[in-house]
Amino acid sequence: MSAEAKFSAATAAVDQAAVAPLPNSRRIYVEGSRPDLRVPMREIELADTPSAMAGPGGVERNPPITVYDTSGPYGDPAARIDIRRGLAPVRAAWIEERGDTEVLAGPSSAFGRERLADPELTALRFDLRRTPRRARVGANVSQMHYARQGIVTPEMEFIAIRENLRRREYLAALVASGPNGARMAKMMGRQHPGQSFGASIPAEITAEFVRDEVARGRAIIPSNINHPECEPMIIGRNFLVKVNANIGNSALGSSIGEEVEKMTWAIRWGGDTVMDLSTGKHIHETREWIVRNSPVPIGTVPIYQALEKVNGKAEDLTWEIFRDTLIEQAEQGVDYFTIHAGVRLAYVPLTAERMTGIVSRGGSIMAKWCLAHHRESFLYERFEEICEIMKAYDVSFSLGDGLRPGSIYDANDEAQLSELRTLGELTKIAWKHDVQVMIEGPGHVPMQLIRENMDLELRDCDEAPFYTLGPLTTDIAPGYDHITSAIGAAQIGWYGTAMLCYVTPKEHLGLPNKKDVKDGIITYKIAAHAADLAKGFPGAQIRDNAVSKARFEFRWDDQFNLGLDPDTAKDFHDETLPKDSMKVAHFCSMCGPHFCSMRITQDVRDYARAQGVSDKDALKLGMEEKAVEFVKSGGEIYTPG
Amino acid sequence: MSAEAKFSAATAAVDQAAVAPLPNSRRIYVEGSRPDLRVPMREIELADTPSAMAGPGGVERNPPITVYDTSGPYGDPAARIDIRRGLAPVRAAWIEERGDTEVLAGPSSAFGRERLADPELTALRFDLRRTPRRARVGANVSQMHYARQGIVTPEMEFIAIRENLRRREYLAALVASGPNGARMAKMMGRQHPGQSFGASIPAEITAEFVRDEVARGRAIIPSNINHPECEPMIIGRNFLVKVNANIGNSALGSSIGEEVEKMTWAIRWGGDTVMDLSTGKHIHETREWIVRNSPVPIGTVPIYQALEKVNGKAEDLTWEIFRDTLIEQAEQGVDYFTIHAGVRLAYVPLTAERMTGIVSRGGSIMAKWCLAHHRESFLYERFEEICEIMKAYDVSFSLGDGLRPGSIYDANDEAQLSELRTLGELTKIAWKHDVQVMIEGPGHVPMQLIRENMDLELRDCDEAPFYTLGPLTTDIAPGYDHITSAIGAAQIGWYGTAMLCYVTPKEHLGLPNKKDVKDGIITYKIAAHAADLAKGFPGAQIRDNAVSKARFEFRWDDQFNLGLDPDTAKDFHDETLPKDSMKVAHFCSMCGPHFCSMRITQDVRDYARAQGVSDKDALKLGMEEKAVEFVKSGGEIYTPG
Repeated sequence: MSAEAKFSAATAAVDQAAVAPLPNSRRIYVEGSRPDLRVPMREIELADTPSAMAGPGGVERNPPITVYDTSGPYGDPAARIDIRRGLAPVRAAWIEERGDTEVLAGPSSAFGRERLADPELTALRFDLRRTPRRARVGANVSQMHYARQGIVTPEMEFIAIRENLRRREYLAALVASGPNGARMAKMMGRQHPGQSFGASIPAEITAEFVRDEVARGRAIIPSNINHPECEPMIIGRNFLVKVNANIGNSALGSSIGEEVEKMTWAIRWGGDTVMDLSTGKHIHETREWIVRNSPVPIGTVPIYQALEKVNGKAEDLTWEIFRDTLIEQAEQGVDYFTIHAGVRLAYVPLTAERMTGIVSRGGSIMAKWCLAHHRESFLYERFEEICEIMKAYDVSFSLGDGLRPGSIYDANDEAQLSELRTLGELTKIAWKHDVQVMIEGPGHVPMQLIRENMDLELRDCDEAPFYTLGPLTTDIAPGYDHITSAIGAAQIGWYGTAMLCYVTPKEHLGLPNKKDVKDGIITYKIAAHAADLAKGFPGAQIRDNAVSKARFEFRWDDQFNLGLDPDTAKDFHDETLPKDSMKVAHFCSMCGPHFCSMRITQDVRDYARAQGVSDKDALKLGMEEKAVEFVKSGGEIYTPG
Repeated sequence: MSAEAKFSAATAAVDQAAVAPLPNSRRIYVEGSRPDLRVPMREIELADTPSAMAGPGGVERNPPITVYDTSGPYGDPAARIDIRRGLAPVRAAWIEERGDTEVLAGPSSAFGRERLADPELTALRFDLRRTPRRARVGANVSQMHYARQGIVTPEMEFIAIRENLRRREYLAALVASGPNGARMAKMMGRQHPGQSFGASIPAEITAEFVRDEVARGRAIIPSNINHPECEPMIIGRNFLVKVNANIGNSALGSSIGEEVEKMTWAIRWGGDTVMDLSTGKHIHETREWIVRNSPVPIGTVPIYQALEKVNGKAEDLTWEIFRDTLIEQAEQGVDYFTIHAGVRLAYVPLTAERMTGIVSRGGSIMAKWCLAHHRESFLYERFEEICEIMKAYDVSFSLGDGLRPGSIYDANDEAQLSELRTLGELTKIAWKHDVQVMIEGPGHVPMQLIRENMDLELRDCDEAPFYTLGPLTTDIAPGYDHITSAIGAAQIGWYGTAMLCYVTPKEHLGLPNKKDVKDGIITYKIAAHAADLAKGFPGAQIRDNAVSKARFEFRWDDQFNLGLDPDTAKDFHDETLPKDSMKVAHFCSMCGPHFCSMRITQDVRDYARAQGVSDKDALKLGMEEKAVEFVKSGGEIYTPG
């Protein structure tokens, strides 16, 4: 099958899958201070508690739970999805209104113009009916720039609404839900205090707090003015921990359509941003399709494409080619660029005695360039010029860790830590230009060295958001590196990392397919959420509490639907108890109907409540009489249906 | 299909799978101070480093890596496996020689005699041709008792050899392997210092150290005298972190044969102990088959079977029935018993306001019994009598956490911590009897509360080994609880937990099948190994280093074979690059042949070495001339095959 044919087929498939809502879920939009500020969330409808298990009066209504939703209009039956047209530009009016940008006649990068003019690419090209936008001369259109001027943008307001998860509204709905509402609200709202390692998360995220964090450089809002389809989100350690999914084809496999499909698939399961790491053919066109259809920020590593332009010969790279690539991609709407400007000439020899040398592709390209020319990296030398481009489109830096360790052996070595200090130096330069920055981190790190990574990043990079790949905590499990790395990711997220780059089961072995993308995302949503709980992010525990309550009350469907992956949970359950009637069974397949600890507990609890023995003292005073009654009544207060 | 027919079919399958060695692996036996002390290990054969990548002289032989092997004779082509006959009693002579036991005429439990006499069970019964053994009157046959008398048993010597992983021999073989041997030995032996949280792991594990730890109660050697087939292993925080796999049928599913198969499957992938949690029919016969064929310690929860004997009515349980069950199982050879003696009457009401009540089956049974009779638990009251039984067979206590939390919400609450203090009190009583003890722990705990669990256990239970189930760090991912819990397991293992009870993807949803068992084991081997690295267990990093070296040198098969699951790694690789020739390809499918950071790094490294630029200063002095040479030579020193 040709690439084009595969593309068409995959496109159709995306259309189908994209409009299917998750079970018992519906999209809601919370409106902000203006009608075009509509924050999407997912509401999961729940069943009532079975009356025999409910508190006094036998009524417990479980209001819907609202969860953060990264999937944009996909999954909303009311949305008209057509990936050939792309998504609606929800931010267009906000960008326009600020009056600090101008619409160009066409792409200003030479390469962008060349691709647009090539008739052979017509069939592959996304049919974009607008031209790029750029800051007016002298203007700076970064969210950091606005923040530092005290301006609260619609993007910031959007984020504040989004991060609060409608927690107050949910608890209010609980209180109003019936006679047990107040008791349930107290229960569902309960959360263990967090341990924050210096992060300071407020009880309520306000737009002003968002602005302040962005101004301070502690958080970024990746939001290229040429990606108006993007729903604003924030990356910072005083916010929910985010997850990035890498996609992208290589010379060996996959077509444009497959990559678009992977993107929609990744955000369906909770990917907060997507990096397009394509290195194969049609890299420009692939990216256009992805950006136009993505409601989440898109990141890239521009050096990959620059290398393609010089036929893979690192030593032939030039600043001019790289610069044109930055502009090309900025005008397509890429929201953040990984730039390995910290790989300095002097650090390269520090990697010679490593076990696994340089494992970052960008890092190794730059190392090769530096050695070949025996010159300082042009990325480092031209950094201020790069900042000028970034602020003209509001592209955020993701300062790449080109010298990150590729093995446990190489963790936290001098090459890595030298580069980190340079990234700190570059952060300050970017901030001088009001350009947003996050810092990429490792990689492969044994658990006892993870904390040091976070502490040094906060110190050297002045609290710029950290964005780590894992880290993998051991190298002995190829095929399971989503797990070796989730262990490290949860920890570093807890310590303060703002975004976790997922690792799929195929890491080190091959390119991820759709199943791998989903496995990677779900695994990383687990790590991110475990970190949110550990940091004590307000309201994070509500979803855990809701799953636990559903589990205890044998509301099987609710348990599945509240989970990160309702389909898999249901399939696993159905392997042992496939009949629909079993979904309301008051026992689990693990123990069978006559041997269920949950049921026994329910008996104990009902008994304790019925007899008013819910406090320790009552029991101590002696209750032999009541014990006799309990046995006489069959020892079974609660009768399963 | 009847249970019997299924059993036969499964038996045949076990025979087939059990004798297949893992790829490029062979069983070796390291002999101790006597010829019948043969410690099994697995040697993984490796290829030489490609000469172009090797150090000076172009020769790097990679001697085989030795790994800890839990699979007993299974997988050794020299072993004759017949599960109808069971395994060879490798410890029989050691037990006999101590002269403190006697051979009984037959089972001394009433139930055991009854089952043996039942002709209807003949077809199902394992054909054991010996009778049980018991301590002579007044004798104590526990390893702790010997240890406290200063006796180093063969079991202890076996363990010392086993825990050292032949590290010194491996490094010596490296040094002797050729011109680059000394350099490679330095590299492969390098390990990051651990952070031990008060554990004190010696550089070399000696038999005397094993004895001392067992005498102190900081480690246990589960080794029932009626399980002579068991290869000695140790559970303690100054040793390698161990993994337990739960198996067992329920009223709803699976046959005896399937359970035996799950056991052999679990130890093939690295399960250190196996708990048989069967609750269905033929619980006695199932256990016999498992014990007779298990080279690893078997644990059970005797209250499950006691409950079966009273038809599932907890309130009908009596001390006499429970006592007979303990003797029945001890005489079959069960190595450790989970006993929920810490579920005291006064603690039961503390669970009434929990989100998920009592989730331990044993805990809920005892809670129900206590409430029904309004009496203190007979397990608590009869604890010293239980100790008398334990020491007559050397069964170890696994003091059950019947009140462990079943949700994030319930973590570290008063019910749980009250029980933990009682377990500490019982530990001291057991130790008075020289009975070995480990302590079971949770469960569901958010990350920021995990450390408290470990600290309180060490304090309240005087450093008795901790054995935890996970803990799960969030409740929002049913279907992925092997991962939610591996995050917690790795952490608590690092903090000092000695054994991790695996959680499979089916947790909360259904009974694990073979795939789930494997997924659970591999996931927990990852957590345990990550913890070993973090604690700085001597030599633990060698395997990571070996994988990393193989990865860097594109020795694909070695990378697969050194991993925890060679089959899955190879399958994943083959999805993209299926041809055999690709196994020696000097690139990965992720990037394709012309865009590989590993290859670029190799170029950088070869170049740096060839030009003698491996230190920073040389570069700083200026090397433009050499840079020109590099470019002239094509910038590609290493030519892929």
